[in-house]
Amino acid sequence: MATIYQATASAPVNIAVIKYWGKRDTKLILPTNSSLSVTLDQDHLRSTTTARADASFEQDQLWLNGKVDEIKAGGRLATCIAEMKRLRKETVEAKDPNAPKLSSYKVHIASYNNFPTAAGLASSASGFAALVASLAQLYNLTVSPSILSLIARQGSGSACRSLFGGFVAWQMGSDPSGNDSLAVEVAPREHWPQMQALICVVSDDKKGTSSTSGMQRTVETSALLQHRIKHVVPERMAAISKAILARDFDTFATITMADSNQFHAVALDTEPPIFYMNDVSRSIIALIVEYNRVSIAAGGGYKAAYTYDAGPNAVIYALEENLKEILQLVISYFPQRPSEFKDVLGLFSKNTTDINTHAKIPAGFNEAVAKRFEVGAVKGLIHTRVGDGPRRLPDSESLLAASGLPKTLA
Amino acid sequence: MATIYQATASAPVNIAVIKYWGKRDTKLILPTNSSLSVTLDQDHLRSTTTARADASFEQDQLWLNGKVDEIKAGGRLATCIAEMKRLRKETVEAKDPNAPKLSSYKVHIASYNNFPTAAGLASSASGFAALVASLAQLYNLTVSPSILSLIARQGSGSACRSLFGGFVAWQMGSDPSGNDSLAVEVAPREHWPQMQALICVVSDDKKGTSSTSGMQRTVETSALLQHRIKHVVPERMAAISKAILARDFDTFATITMADSNQFHAVALDTEPPIFYMNDVSRSIIALIVEYNRVSIAAGGGYKAAYTYDAGPNAVIYALEENLKEILQLVISYFPQRPSEFKDVLGLFSKNTTDINTHAKIPAGFNEAVAKRFEVGAVKGLIHTRVGDGPRRLPDSESLLAASGLPKTLA
Repeated sequence: MATIYQATASAPVNIAVIKYWGKRDTKLILPTNSSLSVTLDQDHLRSTTTARADASFEQDQLWLNGKVDEIKAGGRLATCIAEMKRLRKETVEAKDPNAPKLSSYKVHIASYNNFPTAAGLASSASGFAALVASLAQLYNLTVSPSILSLIARQGSGSACRSLFGGFVAWQMGSDPSGNDSLAVEVAPREHWPQMQALICVVSDDKKGTSSTSGMQRTVETSALLQHRIKHVVPERMAAISKAILARDFDTFATITMADSNQFHAVALDTEPPIFYMNDVSRSIIALIVEYNRVSIAAGGGYKAAYTYDAGPNAVIYALEENLKEILQLVISYFPQRPSEFKDVLGLFSKNTTDINTHAKIPAGFNEAVAKRFEVGAVKGLIHTRVGDGPRRLPDSESLLAASGLPKTLA
Repeated sequence: MATIYQATASAPVNIAVIKYWGKRDTKLILPTNSSLSVTLDQDHLRSTTTARADASFEQDQLWLNGKVDEIKAGGRLATCIAEMKRLRKETVEAKDPNAPKLSSYKVHIASYNNFPTAAGLASSASGFAALVASLAQLYNLTVSPSILSLIARQGSGSACRSLFGGFVAWQMGSDPSGNDSLAVEVAPREHWPQMQALICVVSDDKKGTSSTSGMQRTVETSALLQHRIKHVVPERMAAISKAILARDFDTFATITMADSNQFHAVALDTEPPIFYMNDVSRSIIALIVEYNRVSIAAGGGYKAAYTYDAGPNAVIYALEENLKEILQLVISYFPQRPSEFKDVLGLFSKNTTDINTHAKIPAGFNEAVAKRFEVGAVKGLIHTRVGDGPRRLPDSESLLAASGLPKTLA
């Protein structure tokens, strides 16, 4: 019986606190500034990918959520697969004449996201990280996650940050080859495991500008972006890294919110302007600003930090001890469909069926900072926390059937 | 019978195309950057003010729209009145011993805006300009509008630009005294009388941040504002002045929209962030962007330019020939209450009763760029045009009765 060369991996979503917006090289995906993110827990949000190499396969093929995703010549998928084959050849096959020549085989790849694309979460980050991680296992590579991040980066810039758990920096680098534009770990999840996130999935009427085209329009037309790149981000990268190492939530929150705002400011300073946040997003900001104000007025510190990517969804970072209060506040303004909320981290007693019964506004909170919205304005809430990097999964989790086709199709 | 020393003036509203946002001296109201505006026609929007000086008056008093407006010691109203008295004393009474000593008399002042404060138009600009203009007439001053603008500026920064008609620059100046921070005419209305404006009065749920406090928060916390001040505005001031002199609408429109966007970008880059535009404002931008795209794709140029002040209202600048088409487009997405629109410039035949019957989308326009809103989202539309500077009005227009009290109270 022939050996089956196959591996399955999962990889996490990451949400930046220092935002990536702008490429200096669009082919290699080299950014105009460094960025930094928190990796979220794969227990809740993940991409899972199985990769198999077989001499009988006629072409590289990929299925995403059970549907064929064409691998275009010269495209991002093709680049990542080719780069992984090159690593196999150079770091394994060239050194060990007995190693099977997997780099010469075509691959079948099946990938699955456990969250809906419509949720507006960055599935390309976890997806390309899982792709690269599964191929690294298949090819038995011993290279570091930073080296793998160089390849994931060429699939989707922010994917490079999903090669690590915890708190991750994408160093922009300076080499035109891109060989120093990679992800590094700032701190593992275990350093600050109390860091959690509440994702507010916001409905939107209109399709926003894609981040790929939007960021280049900003590079071409915004007078403010250059100032951000040269004078603001380097300082913030250093300061938030230090804050993470010191577990200083006040500084972490201040910089996170300022950088989200500045990213949306440069998007707005684009011609024509790009808007990702809508009135619901603005209202969530107003709630968090007031929530922090009350805490600070009482002699405490920041208790929550919002951040928004290229869409209307809010991600609220907060320490574990404050999550319940924040969720209660959010549902006071944004009621949920009963049973919609999955209380995976056990904020409430297990028999909670209607999350809305837990609505509660903190003492001293000025309720007039936002109006109460109708059910559906925030169409979902996901509670998660800082997580680990890509995981090797047992073969029982394989997404490919013996036939080499996705199990959903087999 | 004693002589009555009294004068009545009206002054226009102005809407900036290069935005004023930030003071380097909050007491003297010295801005962090120069700005430039279009003066709107007083036939449609104006503040009217009557000022009377009388030896029998016991204190300076002011009524705004028939209600007492307290003149606080050291406040902006007190400063403007004191400065005007000083000008009377120094430029008239000191030179002509026979001139009545009006500077030693108390004044009664009645002011009236012909548009609702709730419309979110900058009534302080026209109001302080009318105050200064009426006192200048009362005191028989022969100083230039630029000199008067120095005083109006101390009432409300943007008021200095309402001392001129047409296209007006507020030069920021550099002297700590503020004596070179004044308004100058870039071009009179007659230079480009085809310039018109459609004001879209947008409903808003929440009270925005006042511009006075908002701009200082931006000065204190925005990393991007300094770049705007030093490197963006000076270039734009020169370029848009040149465009106005050349009647180059393409350049005028490009800079106007870019500067509106950048003002809102630095507001968003403030801690906590300031939002003035809402989802309706964003949709109007989307309409104008698409409207211009269609024109440009057909080999034409820009046909409209949006600009937003510290609120959700849109002001759309356009040349006369395009106003009808723009109005028809706007009402296609933002239906009006029947009879709400006053067709003061005769876009349609006089017997139009329901403006909504004129809704029309231009050929080639992608209707999906915005959704259609309900009646009331844009609660009013005001069509006006570039206008003249402060006017001297006949005594028949006086707002003060013989008693020295406002006619509405007398």
